[in-house]
Amino acid sequence: MTKQCDLVIDNVRIASMQKNGKPYGILTQSSVAIKNGKVLAIFDGSQESYHCNKRYNGENKWLLPGFIDCHTHLVYGGNRANEFEQRLQGKTYTEIAQQGGGIQGTVNATREASEHTLLSSAIKRASRLVEEGVTCIEVKSGYGLDLDTELKMLKVAKQIAEYLPVSIVTTYLGAHAVPKEYRSNPDDYVQFICDRVIPAVARQQLASCVDVFCESIGFSPAQCRKVFAAAKTHKLNVKAHVEQLSDLKGAKLAAEFAAISVDHIEYLDPKDIPALKQSGTVAVLLPGAFYYLSETQKPPVAELRANKIPIAIATDLNPGSSPIASILTIMNMASVLFGLTPEEVLYGVTIHAAKALELSSKGQVKTGMDADLCLWDIEHPAELVYGINQHRPSAKWFAGRIC
Amino acid sequence: MTKQCDLVIDNVRIASMQKNGKPYGILTQSSVAIKNGKVLAIFDGSQESYHCNKRYNGENKWLLPGFIDCHTHLVYGGNRANEFEQRLQGKTYTEIAQQGGGIQGTVNATREASEHTLLSSAIKRASRLVEEGVTCIEVKSGYGLDLDTELKMLKVAKQIAEYLPVSIVTTYLGAHAVPKEYRSNPDDYVQFICDRVIPAVARQQLASCVDVFCESIGFSPAQCRKVFAAAKTHKLNVKAHVEQLSDLKGAKLAAEFAAISVDHIEYLDPKDIPALKQSGTVAVLLPGAFYYLSETQKPPVAELRANKIPIAIATDLNPGSSPIASILTIMNMASVLFGLTPEEVLYGVTIHAAKALELSSKGQVKTGMDADLCLWDIEHPAELVYGINQHRPSAKWFAGRIC
Repeated sequence: MTKQCDLVIDNVRIASMQKNGKPYGILTQSSVAIKNGKVLAIFDGSQESYHCNKRYNGENKWLLPGFIDCHTHLVYGGNRANEFEQRLQGKTYTEIAQQGGGIQGTVNATREASEHTLLSSAIKRASRLVEEGVTCIEVKSGYGLDLDTELKMLKVAKQIAEYLPVSIVTTYLGAHAVPKEYRSNPDDYVQFICDRVIPAVARQQLASCVDVFCESIGFSPAQCRKVFAAAKTHKLNVKAHVEQLSDLKGAKLAAEFAAISVDHIEYLDPKDIPALKQSGTVAVLLPGAFYYLSETQKPPVAELRANKIPIAIATDLNPGSSPIASILTIMNMASVLFGLTPEEVLYGVTIHAAKALELSSKGQVKTGMDADLCLWDIEHPAELVYGINQHRPSAKWFAGRIC
Repeated sequence: MTKQCDLVIDNVRIASMQKNGKPYGILTQSSVAIKNGKVLAIFDGSQESYHCNKRYNGENKWLLPGFIDCHTHLVYGGNRANEFEQRLQGKTYTEIAQQGGGIQGTVNATREASEHTLLSSAIKRASRLVEEGVTCIEVKSGYGLDLDTELKMLKVAKQIAEYLPVSIVTTYLGAHAVPKEYRSNPDDYVQFICDRVIPAVARQQLASCVDVFCESIGFSPAQCRKVFAAAKTHKLNVKAHVEQLSDLKGAKLAAEFAAISVDHIEYLDPKDIPALKQSGTVAVLLPGAFYYLSETQKPPVAELRANKIPIAIATDLNPGSSPIASILTIMNMASVLFGLTPEEVLYGVTIHAAKALELSSKGQVKTGMDADLCLWDIEHPAELVYGINQHRPSAKWFAGRIC
């Protein structure tokens, strides 16, 4: 019987990234039928028959799900190249902060920037990811730290999807830094987040998740607890930057609130891993910041592995600690710097990254899932992790359309 | 008086990379006239008048010389993704070498590959560099280790320039590894290099330079001395991989032969720097291999600086220790990993890289020099070093032609 579909991609090797017991979720079938933006069927070319106007010959290349970059801060004003240069010329962080640099510099520039300016620079950065096979990006706010600018950032982030073939997931990160207006009373800022901004974000549906920076230079566990509680009251998911520079037990706190992910976790105490297991929380590793800040403490990869915690990888694209607009570079860094296998890395930017964003229809080549797919001219999936800047997708489909 | 030219690029900010006492060799003029592939004049748009059919409005963007990648091994057969994966899965180097991996694996694949196959994979890699603003690439042989394959590699390297807007400089690196045929008598291999291959390379003008890998796992200083002497006899320049993993005094030896560059030099003894100064040798730093091999010993940057040794930066693009096809990534690594300032990095991929290849007409925006130019949509040259994968040239000219 002939079935109707919109497109058939034939003659491909499929690394589905399903958890099917095969490395990379490799499938034996060689054809994918697509209908209404979804994968309708995966089948052996000779076995079933689909009627559609379009057929694409994959020439025995590898088909993978589009990559998901599950942690970025890519909407921001200005850049910090000037600071970077000053540090290399010998200035200290304190001197730079005193002259208005650091995160406050980005906050000032983001508050001043028009929506148009923010959007055009964000599109440029997102394009770099999209060119490399990314079809879904999480974008956090957190450089406004006042009501209007935080909402502006989230609106801009959502608009990226109107210009590029990519899904955008937005996260409200008010608890990123204490703004200068609240420097002497940070608890009041936390109250402002909980009472004013979270309700507005929820009402306007500008984010699906609330994030915090739980760190001595960010917010205390007690403050983060308040933010999480407010988020839950407004039916928003929570996730958290934790244990990046020290162990404040942020991961345990996040697990208590069933966080969908804990991110960074270089200083995570392996004893806290069972709590993450219990809460189904994804561990998001960000090797870009580790590299850029010349850190030496590595996340407890062996223990995460032993406890079967899903590990995701992301660029953390931001102007201060990871100005790296390349998922492929970050994938290589995850192997070279953190020792993940190429297979773990590829799970980390597909199915596990989807889980870190609670997206159930992305991150795998699988019947019923979104047809966000990339075709790669390689001999083995490990080649995507082994080098830097060696590959680009030969073809790419977003929601079933070639792009 | 109106002068004739082929093109005027107007309204640009020029980081000439000349050594003119200004950071980045910044010029006050805003226009560049080009004729016969060379820079005819740099002038203030309002001051002089040129007659030509083409004018390009640079819209106040930054004009820099095209980048020069002065150390690559980008012609090779196969890749080593499989090995990379096995190492991350826990196999040792010895186990991998025993099953035919490592450099010998690449030698086997390169010997087997047709010229066509080698060329098409090399063009793909070179394209990645060219896209990022590279207009000149040095390519070494060294994965053949027999007469025919070494000559084949050099011929293939030269052919890249027929397909891409880039100059290719070739280097014969027979003394890269001892091939299996000579494993029990490496001195005979050195003799073969000197008596058979160097004369053939010189006669056929397939390379302008001879390189060696002076290291315990490569060739001894005594062996390198023989190779250098043979190169000099045939009027070829010399350069050397030295002090990458240990201090064998390769740099001193290279200086004795007036080497145009010494490359890697993590283990260089600062006491040997005056010899490099004396011989006018360029120090080529290769942060990609340092990163990829997880090395910890950094080159003596402060001492090189204090002695005013010209420092160049290169990708070292190769399948084993630096499969990184991105000059922009390497430029960022030179700052982040080795502490070079953005200005030093940009000198390192322009005027100093030209000097490492003995090219007197490249690496600067300067009257009389090759019009290999890139226009960048940035606010400051340091932005090219500060991030990874954030920028591509807005426009590019090779030998005066837009490309």
